Amino acid sequence: MKAEIIAVGTELLLGQIVNTNAQFLAEELAGVGVSVYFQTVVGDNRERIRQALEIARSRADLIVCTGGLGPTQDDLTRDAVAEFLGRKLCIHEPSLRKIEQYFQSRGIPMVESNTRQALIVEGAIPLTNETGMAVGSAVTDGTTQYVLLPGPPRELKPMFKNYALPWILGRMPTSLPLYSKMLKFAGIGESSLEHALLDLIGRQSDPTIAPYAKEGEVCIRLTTRAADAAQGEARLAATEAEIRARVGNHLYATEDITLEEAIVRQMENRGLTLSAAESCTGGMLGDLLTSVPGSSAVYRGGIICYTNAVKEQILGVPGRLLEGAGAPGAVSAETAAAMAERMRELAGTDFAVAITGVAGPSSVEGKPVGLVYIAVAGRSRDARVYENQFAGNRFGVKIRAVKHALYRLWDELKTV
Amino acid sequence: MKAEIIAVGTELLLGQIVNTNAQFLAEELAGVGVSVYFQTVVGDNRERIRQALEIARSRADLIVCTGGLGPTQDDLTRDAVAEFLGRKLCIHEPSLRKIEQYFQSRGIPMVESNTRQALIVEGAIPLTNETGMAVGSAVTDGTTQYVLLPGPPRELKPMFKNYALPWILGRMPTSLPLYSKMLKFAGIGESSLEHALLDLIGRQSDPTIAPYAKEGEVCIRLTTRAADAAQGEARLAATEAEIRARVGNHLYATEDITLEEAIVRQMENRGLTLSAAESCTGGMLGDLLTSVPGSSAVYRGGIICYTNAVKEQILGVPGRLLEGAGAPGAVSAETAAAMAERMRELAGTDFAVAITGVAGPSSVEGKPVGLVYIAVAGRSRDARVYENQFAGNRFGVKIRAVKHALYRLWDELKTV
Repeated sequence: MKAEIIAVGTELLLGQIVNTNAQFLAEELAGVGVSVYFQTVVGDNRERIRQALEIARSRADLIVCTGGLGPTQDDLTRDAVAEFLGRKLCIHEPSLRKIEQYFQSRGIPMVESNTRQALIVEGAIPLTNETGMAVGSAVTDGTTQYVLLPGPPRELKPMFKNYALPWILGRMPTSLPLYSKMLKFAGIGESSLEHALLDLIGRQSDPTIAPYAKEGEVCIRLTTRAADAAQGEARLAATEAEIRARVGNHLYATEDITLEEAIVRQMENRGLTLSAAESCTGGMLGDLLTSVPGSSAVYRGGIICYTNAVKEQILGVPGRLLEGAGAPGAVSAETAAAMAERMRELAGTDFAVAITGVAGPSSVEGKPVGLVYIAVAGRSRDARVYENQFAGNRFGVKIRAVKHALYRLWDELKTV
Repeated sequence: MKAEIIAVGTELLLGQIVNTNAQFLAEELAGVGVSVYFQTVVGDNRERIRQALEIARSRADLIVCTGGLGPTQDDLTRDAVAEFLGRKLCIHEPSLRKIEQYFQSRGIPMVESNTRQALIVEGAIPLTNETGMAVGSAVTDGTTQYVLLPGPPRELKPMFKNYALPWILGRMPTSLPLYSKMLKFAGIGESSLEHALLDLIGRQSDPTIAPYAKEGEVCIRLTTRAADAAQGEARLAATEAEIRARVGNHLYATEDITLEEAIVRQMENRGLTLSAAESCTGGMLGDLLTSVPGSSAVYRGGIICYTNAVKEQILGVPGRLLEGAGAPGAVSAETAAAMAERMRELAGTDFAVAITGVAGPSSVEGKPVGLVYIAVAGRSRDARVYENQFAGNRFGVKIRAVKHALYRLWDELKTV
């Protein structure tokens, strides 16, 4: 089954809001094996909505419209679909009564336009709106299925999951179910990963192998259709084994979680604690770690030592490392190691990570933009230090430094 | 000028990522008076990209494509556009040299596919990628303008603002020139701001008044078309004066800069220094401040005191405030004040900001999710403390807390 999502709303075309509905619907549809080939956004304009429907019908079996079901004159999706299908609009009585009761119970006079939210296309099935007024609808016309959903996400999501999706599943041609698996990698770039798997990707047909990159992380989604779960999982496992044999040392999860979440979960399970001394990343590592709910059981805190004075006076890095004749300087392996070791002692944690480098735009101590030293200190031995040269602007260097520090910590955790 | 945005990427169709690029581009284009009538999302499939281009050409003068400029076999936008226009792809030599240098400087072997990122359509103008490898391009074919931008937002945004937008403006049909001004506000929500300006917005025709909200900040863009700069600026100034009379105390900039940048610039000019003690925000404030180039002259560093032990042992908050019978607790006005004052003393800065609260998902010390105390300490008097109840999930509470802390600091700076 091929689907198209049409989001209706001038606020989307003006960039006033982000089209999160399309993302939600796309993910839900992919999850049940419906292929979304196109998404369209169109404004609150009846003729252009009709054009979008015309194009969508020519290339999709299922058209899911969102938005334009409200009470105002700008809410035109119902009218445009009815006109396009040559059908009338009818009042859905239970929805009308619900709207009337809403206004009655609040003692607010109901205006005529509110009744518009109870209209559905003739012959359509109403879809209950558990969290709002506008009724949704689903209708088959010829060989095409149409689903009309409201725009506000808190109305759309329950309506889709509880009413629209079961209706869609009942209309899908029987095909083999879809099985997929996410593999997440750290410490390797997208092109290096793809290069290592080039022949696998080249002959990808079943399972398909789709790599993609987000800030500082890379992931691969394996997807196959199979007669049953055992067959599907066997095929995914075979491909996963081939991938692991080549780049398994960079694989940190087989589900869609971030590296920071994988680390927090692992350390939490093992009762291990962490602190961090951040220079050029300025708190980004702490911010990422504390974005994981429950991270306080693992991450105890840290020191943002953005200047030499803070490195020396609060963190306790020996001044001779930082300045003076022959000093290695703030951006050096020696300072990174001292930062990690001092941080671990001060906070009394099992591990500490330290990051010091040049985020740019200017060089520091004559050292180039992108040069970053990362140190990981544990209880049992001296800190290990890694020298890196990262690409990108200030944000790019910071996020790569933070993700690489997490990767080195994750690697260290394997050895203890 | 009518525009269509085509976002290319199977990850969008699968709902793995949200199409924030379309929102950014739509907002930017609306800002210069370009009407976006449709947005399309299409997968990494050459034939379907061609179909999307065909449809877009029939209804738009300007087609802006994003995504599909990377090095992999899935990155097909360049190839599809070249084929669609019946043109060849050529190597853009400066971009190729940049890519080669990148690999050389890191001692990494360059793989063949990386050269793909230097390809542009024959006859196109290259658009510099300041933050990545893939070169963008802009080309006129017949009466249609085409702009090709990379998918990662941190590459797309500077390329669009610095290179694509000037090219587009040069191709717009001559009409009265557009004058616009950005007003940026802190410490006030979008609906409160809109409420204060409701009648102004209601009779908005010239200049238009467009409010919009981003994470923790609100801005208004005033736009007018005028015969010359004097006339345009006079109109903008008159509307700005009306807005200032009502909500001027929340206005922190009349250009598109973030609150953290406004503060760093102001403190830098005045020779003032800053440190921060962060509990529930976990380093996000430091991360935002250090995202501003040159921030090291102002922000000296801070302590992320995510646990009571770090608050007491590293920061030096008295233990009696944190735990025990009758203690106000970690989330309290007293602790926030002590955190700010201790931080300022330890770091020897002119100002210190402290944030302690409940980011969620669970309550802490019996205190509700979203309760956040913010303290600002200066040299001349005791810290001032502000109690807040913020809405949102974990990220929402953190970003609102950080932006509100910056707003309180900015307010404090007015008094010294």
